[in-house]
Order: sequence, then C-alpha cells, then structure tokens
Amino acid sequence: MTGIKTSGEKKMMLFSGRAHPELAKEVADALGVQLVPTTARTFADGEIYVRYKESVRGADCFLIQSHTAPVNTWIMEQLIMIDAMKRASARSISVVIPYYGYARQDKKHRGREPISARLMADLLTAAGADRILAVDLHADQVQGYFNGPVDHLQALPLLADYIGDRVDRDKLTIVSPDAGRVRVADRWCDRLNAPLAIVHKRRDPDVANQVSVHEVVGNVRDRVCVLVDDMVDTGGTICAAADALYANGAADVIVTATHGILSDPAPDRLKNSRVSEFVFTDSLPTPSRLGMEKITVLPLAPTIARAIREVFEDGSVTSLFEDH
Amino acid sequence: MTGIKTSGEKKMMLFSGRAHPELAKEVADALGVQLVPTTARTFADGEIYVRYKESVRGADCFLIQSHTAPVNTWIMEQLIMIDAMKRASARSISVVIPYYGYARQDKKHRGREPISARLMADLLTAAGADRILAVDLHADQVQGYFNGPVDHLQALPLLADYIGDRVDRDKLTIVSPDAGRVRVADRWCDRLNAPLAIVHKRRDPDVANQVSVHEVVGNVRDRVCVLVDDMVDTGGTICAAADALYANGAADVIVTATHGILSDPAPDRLKNSRVSEFVFTDSLPTPSRLGMEKITVLPLAPTIARAIREVFEDGSVTSLFEDH
Amino acid sequence: MTGIKTSGEKKMMLFSGRAHPELAKEVADALGVQLVPTTARTFADGEIYVRYKESVRGADCFLIQSHTAPVNTWIMEQLIMIDAMKRASARSISVVIPYYGYARQDKKHRGREPISARLMADLLTAAGADRILAVDLHADQVQGYFNGPVDHLQALPLLADYIGDRVDRDKLTIVSPDAGRVRVADRWCDRLNAPLAIVHKRRDPDVANQVSVHEVVGNVRDRVCVLVDDMVDTGGTICAAADALYANGAADVIVTATHGILSDPAPDRLKNSRVSEFVFTDSLPTPSRLGMEKITVLPLAPTIARAIREVFEDGSVTSLFEDH
Amino acid sequence: MTGIKTSGEKKMMLFSGRAHPELAKEVADALGVQLVPTTARTFADGEIYVRYKESVRGADCFLIQSHTAPVNTWIMEQLIMIDAMKRASARSISVVIPYYGYARQDKKHRGREPISARLMADLLTAAGADRILAVDLHADQVQGYFNGPVDHLQALPLLADYIGDRVDRDKLTIVSPDAGRVRVADRWCDRLNAPLAIVHKRRDPDVANQVSVHEVVGNVRDRVCVLVDDMVDTGGTICAAADALYANGAADVIVTATHGILSDPAPDRLKNSRVSEFVFTDSLPTPSRLGMEKITVLPLAPTIARAIREVFEDGSVTSLFEDH
Amino acid sequence: MTGIKTSGEKKMMLFSGRAHPELAKEVADALGVQLVPTTARTFADGEIYVRYKESVRGADCFLIQSHTAPVNTWIMEQLIMIDAMKRASARSISVVIPYYGYARQDKKHRGREPISARLMADLLTAAGADRILAVDLHADQVQGYFNGPVDHLQALPLLADYIGDRVDRDKLTIVSPDAGRVRVADRWCDRLNAPLAIVHKRRDPDVANQVSVHEVVGNVRDRVCVLVDDMVDTGGTICAAADALYANGAADVIVTATHGILSDPAPDRLKNSRVSEFVFTDSLPTPSRLGMEKITVLPLAPTIARAIREVFEDGSVTSLFEDH
Amino acid sequence: MTGIKTSGEKKMMLFSGRAHPELAKEVADALGVQLVPTTARTFADGEIYVRYKESVRGADCFLIQSHTAPVNTWIMEQLIMIDAMKRASARSISVVIPYYGYARQDKKHRGREPISARLMADLLTAAGADRILAVDLHADQVQGYFNGPVDHLQALPLLADYIGDRVDRDKLTIVSPDAGRVRVADRWCDRLNAPLAIVHKRRDPDVANQVSVHEVVGNVRDRVCVLVDDMVDTGGTICAAADALYANGAADVIVTATHGILSDPAPDRLKNSRVSEFVFTDSLPTPSRLGMEKITVLPLAPTIARAIREVFEDGSVTSLFEDH
Repeated sequence: MTGIKTSGEKKMMLFSGRAHPELAKEVADALGVQLVPTTARTFADGEIYVRYKESVRGADCFLIQSHTAPVNTWIMEQLIMIDAMKRASARSISVVIPYYGYARQDKKHRGREPISARLMADLLTAAGADRILAVDLHADQVQGYFNGPVDHLQALPLLADYIGDRVDRDKLTIVSPDAGRVRVADRWCDRLNAPLAIVHKRRDPDVANQVSVHEVVGNVRDRVCVLVDDMVDTGGTICAAADALYANGAADVIVTATHGILSDPAPDRLKNSRVSEFVFTDSLPTPSRLGMEKITVLPLAPTIARAIREVFEDGSVTSLFEDH
Repeated sequence: MTGIKTSGEKKMMLFSGRAHPELAKEVADALGVQLVPTTARTFADGEIYVRYKESVRGADCFLIQSHTAPVNTWIMEQLIMIDAMKRASARSISVVIPYYGYARQDKKHRGREPISARLMADLLTAAGADRILAVDLHADQVQGYFNGPVDHLQALPLLADYIGDRVDRDKLTIVSPDAGRVRVADRWCDRLNAPLAIVHKRRDPDVANQVSVHEVVGNVRDRVCVLVDDMVDTGGTICAAADALYANGAADVIVTATHGILSDPAPDRLKNSRVSEFVFTDSLPTPSRLGMEKITVLPLAPTIARAIREVFEDGSVTSLFEDH
Repeated sequence: MTGIKTSGEKKMMLFSGRAHPELAKEVADALGVQLVPTTARTFADGEIYVRYKESVRGADCFLIQSHTAPVNTWIMEQLIMIDAMKRASARSISVVIPYYGYARQDKKHRGREPISARLMADLLTAAGADRILAVDLHADQVQGYFNGPVDHLQALPLLADYIGDRVDRDKLTIVSPDAGRVRVADRWCDRLNAPLAIVHKRRDPDVANQVSVHEVVGNVRDRVCVLVDDMVDTGGTICAAADALYANGAADVIVTATHGILSDPAPDRLKNSRVSEFVFTDSLPTPSRLGMEKITVLPLAPTIARAIREVFEDGSVTSLFEDH
Repeated sequence: MTGIKTSGEKKMMLFSGRAHPELAKEVADALGVQLVPTTARTFADGEIYVRYKESVRGADCFLIQSHTAPVNTWIMEQLIMIDAMKRASARSISVVIPYYGYARQDKKHRGREPISARLMADLLTAAGADRILAVDLHADQVQGYFNGPVDHLQALPLLADYIGDRVDRDKLTIVSPDAGRVRVADRWCDRLNAPLAIVHKRRDPDVANQVSVHEVVGNVRDRVCVLVDDMVDTGGTICAAADALYANGAADVIVTATHGILSDPAPDRLKNSRVSEFVFTDSLPTPSRLGMEKITVLPLAPTIARAIREVFEDGSVTSLFEDH
Repeated sequence: MTGIKTSGEKKMMLFSGRAHPELAKEVADALGVQLVPTTARTFADGEIYVRYKESVRGADCFLIQSHTAPVNTWIMEQLIMIDAMKRASARSISVVIPYYGYARQDKKHRGREPISARLMADLLTAAGADRILAVDLHADQVQGYFNGPVDHLQALPLLADYIGDRVDRDKLTIVSPDAGRVRVADRWCDRLNAPLAIVHKRRDPDVANQVSVHEVVGNVRDRVCVLVDDMVDTGGTICAAADALYANGAADVIVTATHGILSDPAPDRLKNSRVSEFVFTDSLPTPSRLGMEKITVLPLAPTIARAIREVFEDGSVTSLFEDH
Repeated sequence: MTGIKTSGEKKMMLFSGRAHPELAKEVADALGVQLVPTTARTFADGEIYVRYKESVRGADCFLIQSHTAPVNTWIMEQLIMIDAMKRASARSISVVIPYYGYARQDKKHRGREPISARLMADLLTAAGADRILAVDLHADQVQGYFNGPVDHLQALPLLADYIGDRVDRDKLTIVSPDAGRVRVADRWCDRLNAPLAIVHKRRDPDVANQVSVHEVVGNVRDRVCVLVDDMVDTGGTICAAADALYANGAADVIVTATHGILSDPAPDRLKNSRVSEFVFTDSLPTPSRLGMEKITVLPLAPTIARAIREVFEDGSVTSLFEDH
C-alpha cells in the first residue's frame, strides 16, 4: 500500500463549562484526569467567548454542562463550546448534561407552543454534538428527540438506597405528587416494595369556578410518606402535596427528587414546610449552595464518571443500572 | 417584470391507502370530495405498487392511512405513496394517521432497544411528508419526534360526551388501568369532574419471587368505574384491571379507549369479561369488524374532516379542541 | 496532553434479522464468529420488537437481512434493528442485503409512480445505515441511490463456473429473456465466450390490438440455451422465453438467476416447464425450501463472508471480483 | 386576524446560462416570454460571475442550461446561477437540462470509480435546485438520483414520427448498437411495430487475446436499419455498428439519437461513414453548428416549452408523452 | 380534477420578542399592522415560555428580535419563537435581526475558537428560520453563513445623510478607528466625497515589549473628523481613536455607528470623551435609554418596514439601497 | 463479547488532482510517501474520469488540488475525486486547497449575486469532504462557510521572513493596495514592526463624474514600500498602486502576495512595471511557469506537509503559526 500506517490510539479529554464546575471537578477526580484548561469569558455586552488551551484534535471529547440558572446563558455556552470543538477537529463530542434544561416543555400542552425540549436536542445537533449523557430526563421520550445515542443515567439507585436505609420499611408509602408523575413513583414502589399513593388535584365540586383541592388517592394515615419526583423547582406542588399528606394523617413526609432547581420562592417554602427532609442529587449546584440543614445532597460524580469510562472504553452503560 | 404572472390557486386532494378504506371514505364524504383514484397492488412477492391516476402537481395532498394489522405492510404502503407524491410534484404532503403504529416503543425501556416511534417519524420525513395529523398519540411527546407541524387530534370530547350522557355522574369514578396512564385518566376527571382511582400492579409482599397483585388505589366500592386508556391491544391489562375493580366492590365497569387494536386474544377476553361495555372510535377497522354487541364504535370522520379543512384553509386546529 | 490515552481497538459484530437465518448462520460459520444474541419478536398486533443481548458500543456492526417474503415485514425489521444499533452507539453499521427488495421499481415507468428502490436507500439512511453490501442489484444504478459506500457483490463467478463446468461449451448460447436484460447476458457471453440470443416480446403484426409474440433474435437451433437473468419471480417471463427457445429448435434450456424469489405460481410453472435445470443462489430461502429436484442452489456465504472480512479489515472488495 | 392579507399571485421567469442560448431563445419564444436579462461573465482567471438584472423574489424560476462542451464550465455556471437565485429569494428553482452531463458515469463499472451522475444531482441539490426537467437521461434510474421531482421529457415521439414518415415501414428494422442499449431500441420497436436486431461486440473465438468482432444478432439483410441510441459522442460505436450492418447485407442505415455530442473525431467519422442520415435533436448546439448535410436536427423547444407550461400551471407532464 | 380548488391568498403577520419592543412597535406602525398578541414569560428558573394567541397557520411570519443584552436570553427566545411558529404551520419564517449578536466572532482569530457568527446562523436554521433580514452585519461575509436568503439592510444612507447635512463638507475627513474597519470608512468617503484617514495601533518602536501607540495615518489637522464604525461596544477603541485625532490637531470629532451596544464602561467613556456628538441608530434600545444629550438616535423603523413590505410583496430590497 | 477484535491501525494516503502536480509531488516528498496511483482522464467531450488504482478503504485521504485555471475543470475534478473516495469507503477525506477558487465572491456586493465562496464549500460538503486545509483564504470568514474543521495555513511567516531579510528595516513601510486589504497589511506591520500606508481610490474632486485618483494615505517618501496582498490576479490594482507610490516619492516598491494568479494581462503588466521584485508562493503553478526574473517563488510544500502530518497524527496545526 502507498501511504503511511501507524497504530491507532484513542484519547479522551474532559471539559467543563462554567455552570457547575464543582461537579465537573469531582467527575475529573473520579476519572483521574485534569479538566482541559479553557478560556471562557463573558464580555461586557454579554457575549460568551471560549478557547481551549490545548489541541483537541482527534480526541473523544466529553463536555460537562448542567443547565442551571441562568439557563439560556449556560446552554449557549455549551453550544459555543461544541462549535469550537468541532472546528478544532475533535473526533467525537459527547455532551454530559446532568440537568437537561427545558425538559418540561417536552410537548405542546396547547396549540402554538414550542417543543423546547426537542429544540434543545436540535440545537445540540446543529452545533455538532454526537452523543448525549443525561441524568433522569423529565420524560423518557426526550431520548428520542436526539437523533443519536443518548446514555440515560439514573439517580434512582442512589436516592432509593439512601431512603431504604433511612426509613422504617414497614411504614413506608411512596407518593406521587400529581397524576403526571405516577410512573416515577411506580419505579420506587418496585424497588422498595412499598405501596403507592397519589396526590391528585381536583376541582372542588362544592365550590364553583375551578377551585382545586388536593385529593389523596390511597392510604397514607400513619405512614412515612416519601414524595418522589424528578425535579423540584419553585416547590409549590411538592409542598402543597406534603401539606395534603399531613392533613390526611401522614406520620412523616420526606421529599426526594433528582434535580433540585429550587428557584424562588423554593428556599422559603422548603424552610417553612413541615417536610422533615429533602433529598436531592448534585446535578445542580443549588441544593448545596443553599446550605439548609434539612436538605441532603447525594453525589452524582461516581455515576457520571463510570458512565463516561464505559462510553470511552466501549463498555455498557446499560449494565450500570440493570443489576439492581 | 419579465415573465408570466397568473393568479395563484390552491387545490386539495384526498388519498387513501388500503388499510382502512371505510374511514377514508367517510372523511371524503364529510369533506364533499372524491378520493383520488389510485392503483394500489400487492405483487405475488409481497412488494407494493402504487400509481395515481390523476395529476397531483401543485396540490396540497392529504393521505389517510391507519396503521392497522398487518402494520408493517400499511406503513410501507404509506411511505411508498408519499414517495410517489413527492416525485409527482405535490405542493405539500400531509399524512393523516388515525392510529400511529409503534407509538408504544416511544423510548428505550432498557438498553439496546430501538425508539421505533421516532424511527417512524424519521421514515415519514425521509419519504417526503411535510405534516402529520394524528389522533391521540400514545405519548404527547411523539409530536416532537417529527420535525414539522403535527396536528394532534383528540377523541376525548367524543368519548367523554358519550360516557357523560350514559352514566350516573354521581356514581362515576375514572380509573387508570396502570400507573403509566394516570395522566389520561386525569384529563377525564377534569372534564367530567369525577374522582380518580388507579389499578396498580405490585409484587405481592406475602409471596416470594415477584408475584404481582393488582392493587386498587382509591375508592371504587359501589361506583360506576370507567377504565380509560388510549388503546386496548390484547386486552390483558384492561380485563385484569376490570376484574380487580369488581373484586374491590365496583358496581359496574365500562372500558373506553380511542384505539381498539384488539389483537388476539382480545376478542375472547372481551367476550368473557364482566365489563359491561367497551367504547372505541373507528380509528382502526377492528372494533366494527368484530361485530360484538357490547362494543360501541364512535365515528372519527367528522373530527378528521374538520381538521383537514382547517389545515387546508389555514384555520386553527387548536380551536377545535379548546372550547370544551 | 490532558486526558487519557489508550491503544485503539476494532471489533466486528455480526447480526441477523429473522428473514433468512440459514444464510446468516453460514456466513457466521465462514467468519468463525457467533451471531450476536438478539431478542426479536412480533407482537400480536404485528409490531416488531428487537433488543440486543450484548453491548454493541463501538463495534463495526454487520447486519444480514434478505428481503424475502413477507418483504415489508423484513425491511421494517431491518430498519428497526439499525435504529437500535445507532442508539446503542455502534461505531458503524453495514447492512448486508443478499436480495434487495423493491429493486425493480428503480425508475418511474410511467408518471406518478414511486421510485421505491431509491426510497429503500433513503429509509436505510434515515434509520442510520452507513454502508450497504448487496448482491447483484437489479440495476447497477441502484448503487447510486445510497449516498455512501455500496459494496456490490456478484454471483456471476459462482453461477458461471457452475454452468461452464456443466454444459458442452461448443453448443452453449447465452440468452436474455427480454430486451431489458441483455446487459447481464452480455457479461455471461464475455465470461464464457459464448454467442448471444434474445427473446423479444413484440406485438403480433397479423393480429390487431397489442397481442404480443415472443420473437427469438439470434440463432438457437440445436443449441444448449442458458437463459440468464438476475431474478426469477413468478416465472412467467422466463418460462415463456424457454418455450419460445424450444419452439425455435433449442436442444436444451437451462435457467440461471442470482435471486430465486419464486412467488406463486412459480413453483407450478417451474415444475411444468420443459426447462431441464434451474440454478439459483441462496440469496433467498425459497429455492432450497421448495425442495424441487431440478432446482440447484449455490451457496453465497463464502462470497459474503470474504466481503465482510475485507470491509472490516480495510481490504479490497473490488479485487474479489476482478481477477476472473 | 392580525396582519395583512393579499390575494396570492404566481409568476414564472425564464433564465438561460451561456451554454446553448439558441435553444433557450426558442423556448422563450414558444412560451411568449423574454429571458431574464442577466450579466454573465468569465473573468481572466476563469471564474464565472453572474447577476440578474431584475428582481426574482417570489418567482418560479426555470433555468435552461445544456451540458455541452466545455461541460465543467457550464455545469459550474448553472450551479452559480442557482445559488444566486436561492439567495435572491426565488420561490422555486427548476433546472431545465436538455442534455445532462456525466449521465454515462451512472454506476461504478469497476471499483474506486465515482458515480458522477449522482454527484451532479447532489451538486444541484446543494446549490438549491428544487426540480429537474431533463430530456432522455442515459439511464432512467438517474431520475432517482435527485431527491425531488424530475420531469423526464422524451424525444422519442419527435424522432420516431420523423423516421416513421421517412422510411418504408415494411423494410424497417430497429437496431441497437450494443447490448446495453437494447431497451431503447425496444421502445422504438413498440412504437413503429418493427423487428429488432442487435449489434453485439464479442471476442473473436478464432483469434487469441480479446480481439472483438461485431456480431449482428437478428436479421438485417435487405432491411432499412435504423440504429437508435440516446447519444452519439465520438461516433466510434455507432459507425462500427453501421459498418457491421452493411457487412451483413443491410440495404440502408440511418442513425438517430436524442443527443448529438459529436466530440472529435465524430465529425470526420460521420462524414466518412456510409450511414445515409444522422438524425438528432437540438438538445446540444453541436449538430446544427457542424452544418453537415446528412445531419438532420429536430427542434426540442416546443416539447420543453409545453413541459415548462405544465409545470408552472400545475398540469400534467406525463400526459404529454402517454397518448402516443 | 378530484379535490377542492380555492383562490390562494397570502397573509403577513408581524411578531416581536421581548428584546426591543419599542422598535417592533414602530415597525408595526409603519406597516399599519398590529403585532401578533403573544404570551412570553420567563419562569423562576430562567426558562422562557412562548405562545401565540392567534393562529399563524399559512402565514408569512416576520419575527423581530434584536440581540441586545442579555444577549443569550434574547437569542434563545428567538429560537423558541421560531420553533413554535414552525410547529404551528407557519408558511414561512423571516427573522428580522436589527443587531445580529456574536457577529464579531466571525472567524477563528486563533486556533480552537468557535465561529459563533456561523453557529448563530446554524441555530436559526435548526429552529426553522427561512430568511434573515439584518442591518449592517459586522462582516458582509456573515450573509454567507446562512444557507438561504439574507436581506442585508444598510444604515449608511440614514447616517450619512444626517452627517452630510450637519458638517462643513469642505472640512470633513472620514476616519477609520482601526485597520480592520477601513472598508466601512471607504464607503463613507465614496458617498460624501471626503478624504480618508486611519487610526492605526502600533507597537511603539522606542519602548520594548509591545506597548502600542495610536498612529494617525493621513491628514487630520484642522479637519472635522467623523469616526465611522459599524458598532460601538465598550467605547475603548473609539474614544482612544478620538483622543489620537485631537492629539493630531483635529478641529472636531464626531462618532457614528449603526449599532450602539454601549456596554459598561461605555456610558462613562462617552460622557468624558471630547467627542462632540455620537450618532447611532435605534437597532438597539441602549442609545435611547441612556438619555445622554450628545447621543443622537436615528430611527430604523422606516427602513425595516419598507424591506418587510418588499419581501412580503415579492418586490426588490436591493433597490432600496442602490439608487443612492 | 461475541465477534472479532483486532488492534486498530491508521493509514494515511496522499492524492493529487491534475491542477498542480509539481506541488503535490513536493508535498509527497516532504512527507516521504508516494502519491496514490490514479487514472485521471478528460474524455473528448470534456467529461472527467477518475479511478484509484489502489484500495483506499479505511484510509485518511488527503487530496491536493489547487484551483488554478481552468478553474471550473479542476474544481469539478476535485469533486469527482472526493465522490470516488467516499464510495470507495475512505475513512476520512481532507481536501488540501493551496489556492481556493471563487474566494473573492465571498459576499453579495450587490443584490442578486451568488456567494460563490460559500457555494464551493457546499459543493465540497455535498461530494463528501470532511475537512479543508487551505492557505490564506481571501477573507478569514470563508473558514466559516464550511461546516467542519478548516485548517487555515498562513504564508505570512514564509513571505515576511524573506522580506525581513532582504530590505533595510529602517526604511521599510508596509502598504495596503486598497482600503479593503488593510487588515493584511496590519499583520505585516505587527510582524516586521513597520509603519503603515494605504493607497486609496477616490473620486477626483476637481473632475466631474466619478474619475478616481489613487490617493496615498500615510508617508512613503524615500521609503522602501512593500505592497502586500493575498493575491495578484490581472495585476491592475497592484501596478497602479505601485505607480502611485513612486509618484509620491517612494524609494523602491516590492510586491508580495501569497497567490500569484497572474491572469492576462498580468505578465505584461509585471514586466512593464517599475516594481523591483514580485514575491509569491507556489500555491499556483503560474508564477514559476512564467519564468520571469523579477518574480521570486517561495515553496509552500514544507508548510503543507507539516500541516498534513499534524492532522494525521492528531497534533496541533495552530502551533505551527503561533510561535512566530
């Protein structure tokens, strides 16, 4: 053959945007690598500038960015970082999104709305992303919005093991905070072998004009209720659900969710709530930053690092979540 | 200006594949048009051949095909019909899919599975479809799998009005047949102002090794239970749910679903079930063809025809479903 | 450099759909590998479900599926299998199609027809295929319908060597069964250095209204005629051509074709025909399954296995067919 | 509704590149329009510059360019003209290609060749073409290389009517100049109800090492032979075929082809040939420019103009060629 | 023909994001239309929600959004608004971008940078934009980053007419603030027939290590210098250039630019500068909002409205800027 | 794992079109490889045919083609060569374009023009190119026209080192030949620490009707002026600029440009000019072929070879140009 032959080699490089550097650092530590030194700046007019200080040519690049507030800024930074990788000849670009923004706008609830969760996938594709690693997408179907491999990591083992160790299993009831999240609760029931209840919003039949009440479907009296959801944003739904549980005789209420967005007025609501403990992962920086005693934060870095290693080494991410 | 100017004109043409000609005919009647004469043949080797007998150049084409059994055959016929339209210079191609096949494979339930619902959208796009009109997709997110307009029609008004007229509203309870379909039930509760219950599959704590029981969450004693789902396929889940309801003291159980797939052994199961009535639409030909007395079939043609007319005349499909 | 470096590695995995498992098994044996264990099921409603039981991440995947009857089912299964590979992070997806369905609809014979052969290539692309290996496409131009590498395997060496050994070369005449297949016959003439004849359908000038006669162009009297085509479907054309040859004094007629589709009423026609032998490859399962004595079936597995090996090892597929 | 409503209007504009302005002018005359005034220049370094002198915004643009020599220059000019239309907001771009260049490289004859005919379709798509109108593509399959509507015009009616009027139909035999073009000859046989013959190149069995002879398959003695092909390039094949026909006793030989490329040394070969008449269309400027007495040139402009009118007015192009 | 025919109609609808509603309102007034009523909200977690209150089906939609601070938020809002239009069946989507963000990152100044100006075009395409109308892009080449029509509006006539009326033309010198913007200055020279000067940054040869000085190339003594640029951001370059002009004996210095970004510390710099007048357009809301006496703001709405009207009515935008 | 595992290997192959074989040969020598043996032919009708004589399967292919005259022919040859590589299963295709044709048509100077520089990038993409290596693109923004990695090589170090060694640095002034090329001159000023001047075309204020004069902005009297540009085509601008410099008292004028296109009448203009030396690279074959004494040609092969090696070995191309 005419030409030059060399033995092939693979290299992996890990990058972080500026949204949640603590988590990226922990993932890097778990993998035993350094984050690639990167210049990232916001100019006075708000535009973002990014440059990598090392060659990325031929590397399998993993870029960690969680879509925390200010969400549009960090999504745009991620897109710009992908564009720079693509033009710098990265071999592949895997974006690691511990919390995927706009995931709740995953369908048209009414006419003439966007499907922003699909749009985000399209923007990632347009910028040059080849693969997504995400944790607990709001709807599993969002995986299908990206036309390439999506490695869908789950916090359920992490959260459920913690809860399982901590509560009296005989008294445990898993509660879905509304009708739309029952499927998540169902998985908890399976894993912890616990009964199910639902807090269901209904119009009050005794009052005209759409006043809604929180009806508890299922038995919660004297039970330790664990309200499970994928995310807690302003905390309104979850705290109202907790109130309804106590009003129906619950012995204790614990709240757990993968993503603690905790936008205002969530901090106040959590503080004032009768919920005894809130358990989140560190997919977002907020739960830790609030420094609130009744918030427990469980670390995602080991899970993410194992998944990145499997992806890089062509192993199985599926196997990480199947044997439980 | 150099050239020729003429007044623009718009024309609409309606086509049908061979999956469910009765429904297409009714839609044509409702619109006051003829279906475009079409040669469609299956050769001895199973390949499908299609040819339109009239020019379709410049027309806004609406192609009705429901994904009934044999589902792969009818999907392929639809793709081939789209290809022929595209190459014959159709101005736009809207595919009307009363029942969208593979909608349940809308996510990876486990690793190394396809997301066939997304694949179907991609195949339609590859063939040349510009728009989809579909009725009650299994998950709303499937709308986002197609990268163009999706007009999502609802059978809820049709079905719920029928039920509302037929049962004693004071005794009515809406029941979801499993944890994953609670959101549909929730919409019924809102519309008919009825309480909610859920049939929930659980491991039996008294028996080792994964034996599951149907636990009813919520109160159904002496109630008229309407089990609601988007589709009934082999009927296993729904009939077991009905049994659980009767076992928990339900006065009567009615089943309603948009799509009556009714694959074997559904006909036997329905016949033998204690369910007093099954209510479906004619999105699929099966419910009518079974000719079973306790099956009621409600007609979709008026809904579909109104939607096609709105699309062709640039009106609002949203408004068809919002004022209820 | 920041990051991790490892030596690269390549792995090849072989998959089979359910259309023609015997051939896939023989290819696997010839390559010395196991087929990847795969769950493939058809549900009661006709939908297909597929899941791979091993991780395919990073592998060069070769998926064998022949488009035998029921052709739409097996094409859809292949598309679904490709989608599952893509989403499971296959490194590359090569589809091996011993018989490519819809290849005869490779152009618009009349207005408002599809070009289904192109559509199939587009569907494969939409699902995620990177490369096609196919055997004797009906028209060579179909290669150009796929916008990536197509490795076009030929059964000519296999078939012609068999015929060359079996007939008296001095008496041999190669015959094209109609005007459209002369190019294939021409290649046989070149390889076996034999004269050419053509069976040509013509209107009968003595009878009004389009009655056609089979005119033999060229000399076939007392010759051993080998009718060559790429495929035999219902057998009408080929058996009529054989009759015309005998009517024109042929000593013997043998039929050979790469693809034995043999749809009804081909089995009867072949049985009743005066043709002394039919020679096919096993690109399709039918020729073997008919168990008819005058059908000879030649094995493609060695050819396919060699091509897969060349593709995987970056060798030359061209060289497999050039030195003859 | 908020906004502005106006009655829609359609306008058609006709453009010509510099390859074959005579034909474009005739098409314009037949349509009763002016060609859009266009600046087209070749700079000293060979780059082409194009600018339209009138607004094309919102127009259905038809761009005529025949791929005559220098073929690469005129293809590039066409691509540049399409790009300028696209960026100037043309509503649709239909490219009219009386002779489609690179059509013979429509497959890989051997490994590691391009499929240039597909590449041309891809380049037209990349530049922005929406539709192709072409005359007698070398292989019908080339239609499928473009992923949009292709209106395939035929010169057969024009050429065959001329021949039919001019020769003694009882003596007429249609001859294919080689094995690969028999399908074209077959259509002539059908139309003029004439017998078929083939000139077939073969190795001479009496001479070693691949010397080929022109074997005439079929009866041509004392017949008026019309050699039919889609194009005549250097004239080697067709003149050798004519010689073979005379050597086998033909009374007269006429050659007809849609496209008279007539590259060197075709002019000399035609002059020196015993062929009594060559009949071409004016798809290319060469046949007329040669000014040779035995060349007859038939005008395509009426056919092209009728097709453009049908396309613009959403009529049927198919019907132009079906009723013969 | 089978089907329904109606006379076509065109409708135009005008939309505005929340970045610069004053300008959108003025454009609407100039066009004599209302902006389409739109719900646009930012949730507590920073995600944006948009919904149109009227059907947009079949409309030619024009969406005005200027990329002012916070730039990433408004770009994302624009993308989301486009997605909602696309899914609501808009006939075409034209995005009007008075100030196009990230336009300065229009190339890789160094390795491993993004080309964000191209990325923005790709994101607009991914969301569904069909056309861009923009004012004075930083580099004309950015037009080519979008693969569709770009109507490039110019503020030069507006600005230059104002300056031409205001200064003593005999004393006027046009000055480019650095070497990279001379082409803009050149257009001013042509239009106002004035001499050119350049402020050029250079290392000081008398001082080691890269200290740069502002060298004035060309004669500015006793001249009225008009410093022209496309945008003023933090004002550093332009104010330093003005100082250099005064230091070289300029009689007066006026600054003019299309886009007044005026990020911190621009307000202070402008206030403290010896520049006598700053002239901007209202492509961004900042110049007006600062309420500074020596800032003059010229209105773009008439220009934008005329361009939208030409686009909608298929007129010529080019002609708006060519006759000056 | 089921399947076969082998150690990966990488191979690089170098190809050349027929535009500038001397340069390709020198690059091959510098890399220590042979050019891949290739059949490339132009048929009598002007169509190009290409075939590679060795398997390219799995190789990283680098294809050198400079867009010299006849520019359309060589661009088309390059596209065809890319198509053949793609279909022959090349692993990646990097096109090396020492001189990128149509780079000056990088924007719409007026309405209804093409953006041919973008079109070329789109054509390369459509054919199958993965990466571009180019030398001194006319505008840096052209990098952004290609949606993949562009390695932008610079001749500045080569040219400036030559000039720096050859002229008296104290007398050196860098001159831009017109207002649009000042940015290039600016880089030279930085590198050689020299003052800047500009030749600026202006209407003569003393003469009516647009007569333009060449105004020299900046001081050139008694200076050694180096006129710098990226390319010299017909030489009109550059020779007029040189005349203006001499007329303004320049001591000496040297011209340097990366690309010597030198179309007619450049050879005469250069010969007759008072410019003492013209310095070009060999990006195009013309400067050497003219054999003119006052033309100096500097070799690009070492730069290109180093860049190819870095690309193949995943090194940094950026670093080649940053440390100067």
